[in-house]
Amino acid sequence: MTETKRSAHCVWAGDLVGGEGTLTVGSGALTEQPVTWASRVEKPDGRTSPEELLAAAQAACFAMALSLVLGQRSAQAEQLVVEATCTLELQGAPRITAMDIDVRGVIPDLDGESFQHAVAAAAQLCPVANALRRSVRINVTAHWRKTPIHA
Amino acid sequence: MTETKRSAHCVWAGDLVGGEGTLTVGSGALTEQPVTWASRVEKPDGRTSPEELLAAAQAACFAMALSLVLGQRSAQAEQLVVEATCTLELQGAPRITAMDIDVRGVIPDLDGESFQHAVAAAAQLCPVANALRRSVRINVTAHWRKTPIHA
Repeated sequence: MTETKRSAHCVWAGDLVGGEGTLTVGSGALTEQPVTWASRVEKPDGRTSPEELLAAAQAACFAMALSLVLGQRSAQAEQLVVEATCTLELQGAPRITAMDIDVRGVIPDLDGESFQHAVAAAAQLCPVANALRRSVRINVTAHWRKTPIHA
Repeated sequence: MTETKRSAHCVWAGDLVGGEGTLTVGSGALTEQPVTWASRVEKPDGRTSPEELLAAAQAACFAMALSLVLGQRSAQAEQLVVEATCTLELQGAPRITAMDIDVRGVIPDLDGESFQHAVAAAAQLCPVANALRRSVRINVTAHWRKTPIHA
């Protein structure tokens, strides 16, 4: 297979501030999840949002990219924890301005410096980071750890 | 508030092909959802993926952008259905190459031509489309409808 396609749909009724939508993804992992403008820019109240979904895409994609890079270096993660935070700037026309990626890794076969190099290589490889990079500031921080994190 | 931040994290163990991760978002809408490379590029088997999450972000964001544009034109959606499809190209280093956005709208106060103009304006405004546009081909199609769709 040379490409994969994944789909989702949002059904919306009403205006931006008073209206509401539901979000469903093809795999079924999200089904008719409510979305509103208020929960996007004020408190989430259990509702996801475009920025949270971008952060989730980024976190999962980066973890996979880094696991590939580690494999190329004959190392394997006992544990990676990738946290991504997406910033929506609201002054003027709303813009997604930053994606902060924080990586903690427990990799028995790799020292701290090699881990930093692997994270830098993963940042160049990661398809989601590459899709965003030209418009969104991508910041990556990496922390090598000896013992697993219970996230 | 001048900006909002939304976060998610992925915990991963193992290599790319044999390993697996779980994905959790800050709002709680997804909690320890399994993610694997196989379900990303082969069959999803109920599992989400970075591309599906990008498609979900795009669908919800576009629906909100269009509802705002419609409001600026004194119109309101009885129903919008925004479907987004994200393509991951796998030849060579994997790259996200396209986001196809299909918009169907039931807007009593607007004719078909005005709807097309509103969709074009929303495509320029949408923060997720703007975050992707410089690296990813964004294709938007719009269909004005008289009666709601049961999606």
